[in-house]
Amino acid sequence: MLFRQFFDPVSSSYTYLLASAAGREALIVDPVKEQVPQYLMAIEQLGLRLVRAIDTHVHADHITGLGALRDATGCITLMGEFTRAECVSQCVRDGELLDVDGIKLRALYTPGHTSESFSFVLDPERPRAVMTGDVLLIRGTGRTDFQNGDAGRSWDSIVETLFRLPDSTLVYPAHDYKGWTVSSIGEERRYNPRLAGKSRDEYISIMNRLKLPDPKLMDVAVAANLACGQAGNG
Amino acid sequence: MLFRQFFDPVSSSYTYLLASAAGREALIVDPVKEQVPQYLMAIEQLGLRLVRAIDTHVHADHITGLGALRDATGCITLMGEFTRAECVSQCVRDGELLDVDGIKLRALYTPGHTSESFSFVLDPERPRAVMTGDVLLIRGTGRTDFQNGDAGRSWDSIVETLFRLPDSTLVYPAHDYKGWTVSSIGEERRYNPRLAGKSRDEYISIMNRLKLPDPKLMDVAVAANLACGQAGNG
Repeated sequence: MLFRQFFDPVSSSYTYLLASAAGREALIVDPVKEQVPQYLMAIEQLGLRLVRAIDTHVHADHITGLGALRDATGCITLMGEFTRAECVSQCVRDGELLDVDGIKLRALYTPGHTSESFSFVLDPERPRAVMTGDVLLIRGTGRTDFQNGDAGRSWDSIVETLFRLPDSTLVYPAHDYKGWTVSSIGEERRYNPRLAGKSRDEYISIMNRLKLPDPKLMDVAVAANLACGQAGNG
Repeated sequence: MLFRQFFDPVSSSYTYLLASAAGREALIVDPVKEQVPQYLMAIEQLGLRLVRAIDTHVHADHITGLGALRDATGCITLMGEFTRAECVSQCVRDGELLDVDGIKLRALYTPGHTSESFSFVLDPERPRAVMTGDVLLIRGTGRTDFQNGDAGRSWDSIVETLFRLPDSTLVYPAHDYKGWTVSSIGEERRYNPRLAGKSRDEYISIMNRLKLPDPKLMDVAVAANLACGQAGNG
């Protein structure tokens, strides 16, 4: 399998390009608009045909590459069914299976960071990895204080849904700010400082006390991302 | 196998932590001093025992974590046999096989970026990956204009040594500046713009015309790294 992780240093975002092998159809998860030329170079040089561009949720800290990738490749843009982004051409339901030329992903509804966040499990019959967007980060969790975020729902998504995956399942988040590139469900169950040994109420209290500043790009990014990153570009 | 890639955003460095599995002996390649607390956290939480800390070469752009890791864990510090860093406690020869609790690495002498650079091939019987330090980067190559760098030797190391590995061998460099985390030998053979379709003389001409500024940390880093990053700390 071809699995490529890209990093956007400005927003500390991770993006994932997946295909069964070079020369096959491919999908990309959480692309960043400014990095689209890099993805297109990789897609071309690996002989891939991009057929799906997926956002786990409407991002507030960077502009999505969905629209630019759709324009460049004709790929289908995809999000979970509760997205407010009307530009996407396919919405998936909780539990729905995607199969892109042999790459199998199970869509899981994991709200909390936002009310419309999905995660995607690779090889759901025998889970190898999960792309968690911002709901579960490495030794952290995504903030729950805007875009209908909800700390209780974040706990439920992580503890009742994601932590039911096997411990060996690799965790690939949409961000990391400390230089980590991957974790696993077992590690996060045991060592995530916001979750391990905590109750649901304690987690809600932690999250509601964070008082983080808004992301710098928030006003611009959310509006643009509701139009697949193409707001103002038609 | 446990394979963890870490990123230092200040120097755009990659560091690799490897072990056969959680709970086993581990080795680390090209650690960055400022990130040592992160590595130590990962090592502890994964139940690893660090037994080797390896630098591919004396870095000029960041301070190595070798000394700090040796102090914290008692691991053996290791470099290739031509290093000028007298602090290291094990030097490996070209072709030498390292076996750390089931993790097998073949040391390859690949000078050019510096005169003492080594690469390390994972699972040399059936190469899965190669950690190339700065001699071969993703769609680039390490500069050859200081620390006895030599563009002709860089070409020979890449084309005559690294490119003889199978095309499928994954390439994990010590740096990337564009957000890529991994490549493969086949991709670099075909698409590295400094190498693909070029002659040795053309490559030498390209490298000798680069006229790059010195790395910001160069004076500090090289001196410190000859003492495993512990200069001034005893």
